[in-house]
Amino acid sequence: MTHGSPLNVLLCGRFDAAEREAWWSALRCAAPQCHWHRDDATFDRTLIDAAVVANPEPGALAALPKLRLIQSLWAGVDKLLADTTLPTQVPLARMVDPAMNAAMAETALWAVLGLHRRFFDYAAQQARAQWQPHAQRRADEVGVLVLGAGQMGSAVAARLSAQGYRVVTWRAREAAPLVPLLAAAEIVINLLPLTPATRGLLDASFFASLPRGASVVNLARGAHVVDADLLAALDSGHLHRAVLDVFHTEPLPVEHAFWRHPQITVLPHVAALTDERSAAQVVAGNLSALANNQTVANIVNRIRGY
Amino acid sequence: MTHGSPLNVLLCGRFDAAEREAWWSALRCAAPQCHWHRDDATFDRTLIDAAVVANPEPGALAALPKLRLIQSLWAGVDKLLADTTLPTQVPLARMVDPAMNAAMAETALWAVLGLHRRFFDYAAQQARAQWQPHAQRRADEVGVLVLGAGQMGSAVAARLSAQGYRVVTWRAREAAPLVPLLAAAEIVINLLPLTPATRGLLDASFFASLPRGASVVNLARGAHVVDADLLAALDSGHLHRAVLDVFHTEPLPVEHAFWRHPQITVLPHVAALTDERSAAQVVAGNLSALANNQTVANIVNRIRGY
Repeated sequence: MTHGSPLNVLLCGRFDAAEREAWWSALRCAAPQCHWHRDDATFDRTLIDAAVVANPEPGALAALPKLRLIQSLWAGVDKLLADTTLPTQVPLARMVDPAMNAAMAETALWAVLGLHRRFFDYAAQQARAQWQPHAQRRADEVGVLVLGAGQMGSAVAARLSAQGYRVVTWRAREAAPLVPLLAAAEIVINLLPLTPATRGLLDASFFASLPRGASVVNLARGAHVVDADLLAALDSGHLHRAVLDVFHTEPLPVEHAFWRHPQITVLPHVAALTDERSAAQVVAGNLSALANNQTVANIVNRIRGY
Repeated sequence: MTHGSPLNVLLCGRFDAAEREAWWSALRCAAPQCHWHRDDATFDRTLIDAAVVANPEPGALAALPKLRLIQSLWAGVDKLLADTTLPTQVPLARMVDPAMNAAMAETALWAVLGLHRRFFDYAAQQARAQWQPHAQRRADEVGVLVLGAGQMGSAVAARLSAQGYRVVTWRAREAAPLVPLLAAAEIVINLLPLTPATRGLLDASFFASLPRGASVVNLARGAHVVDADLLAALDSGHLHRAVLDVFHTEPLPVEHAFWRHPQITVLPHVAALTDERSAAQVVAGNLSALANNQTVANIVNRIRGY
């Protein structure tokens, strides 16, 4: 932010105390030229040029007359867009953070290695003290389908290809039919944005299109999956395993069947956490662009939904 | 094998029936110019030029007057060298197979990702239906020490470096002191050959040299580890976790404490299985070299022990 007048920026959302202080510190270090305000203290709503947000309360962004940018700290903006009080004329930027893409690629790779090399199965065998080696296959014998070809889908596909896996990607916007790709996939990794077109995509007919013994890794949003259909596909033996990081309700309720299902691995929404240090640099870049009337990166297309 | 007279080659060792047929078929396809013999049928001991072996019975290679090469199908030859009837004047070749190196790199990467990103801890949390995210660190913040800089150690170090980990390697033959490297290691991966110098290297003093919270991955030989010292280091809380593929006795006896220890992951010696298809090509290359009086690859130095 070398030119232009200082921006007044609001940090706004639901954090625990430690998170809030970490973000407050990282953002002020990354963009010290801005005047920073926070929504857990008093501030003048008429001053705010930009809001940096994480899970804001509905309505929190409604009465900010000078607001020119909403910058999300999270990559997924489906919850933000569901807030009907969100000002429709203000550009909304998603978080696209290389450190977060790398974290997502690590999680996807760990899941694929665990499925390909049967490490999940060996963990189940350990619980029975069962010594039973299984045949070993090469990575290039394993077909992986990555749903989503945005920043994260691309990072995951590139990382898996580099390890030798046979990787195919599919994006919801393309007209390419999904069923033939499913039929050739041993492992499916979901990294789609959640939109009306992708909600509930992973349903009984989706699972039935996969070959017997396939596995599903959901790293996107819980609402992509029809839970009852997934349980049925696992229980029938058609699917081998599911690795799930995201759920319809989070935290996943203790009584939910996923916690105790022997073919399901539950992660507590940790596939890719926003890294405060690198994300604060991304925010600073966009605030600098705003101050200097340059192009702000990663603006959401609200019709498309991401 | 384009020149020279056909070799008489013996396939020799302890296999189950399916393994024996898989090797027999793969080897004859890869080296059809050889005359192949097998030790579960009658054969003329005076004819045999070369023996391709996997866990042969002690003495099996003793009375082969024309023997000019012993080719191991396994990478580790510590058990072969312990056979006092093994002819000392016949060159012994280890298996060095790129597909096996790749498999070892996959297993090491899976273990490192699981430790770095706390996926082992999340599995334990799932058993308690506990939703508890942990802080996320970048790969370049994780120090990994690879013990062993042979074919497998090098393949593992290269793969981990490519993912961004801070990797240091150490080889037993070098005079470099190990203790300072241990003090900086969060994860240690053992890929050393088993020799008198490395047997029992992973003992109480080794573990005490690691920082608190470090983890150990043993993919080499069970006899590298002093089991009681490892259990003590885990139980005291000094070590976080151990991932073990190899054991003093294999299969690991059902009553062994490792099976049920919450901080230990037991794998049934599957970190890198020999791939018949690629290993048969490696064997064929060495048989061709022998037939043509060229240099046979990966000859074991029997003093060094690998």
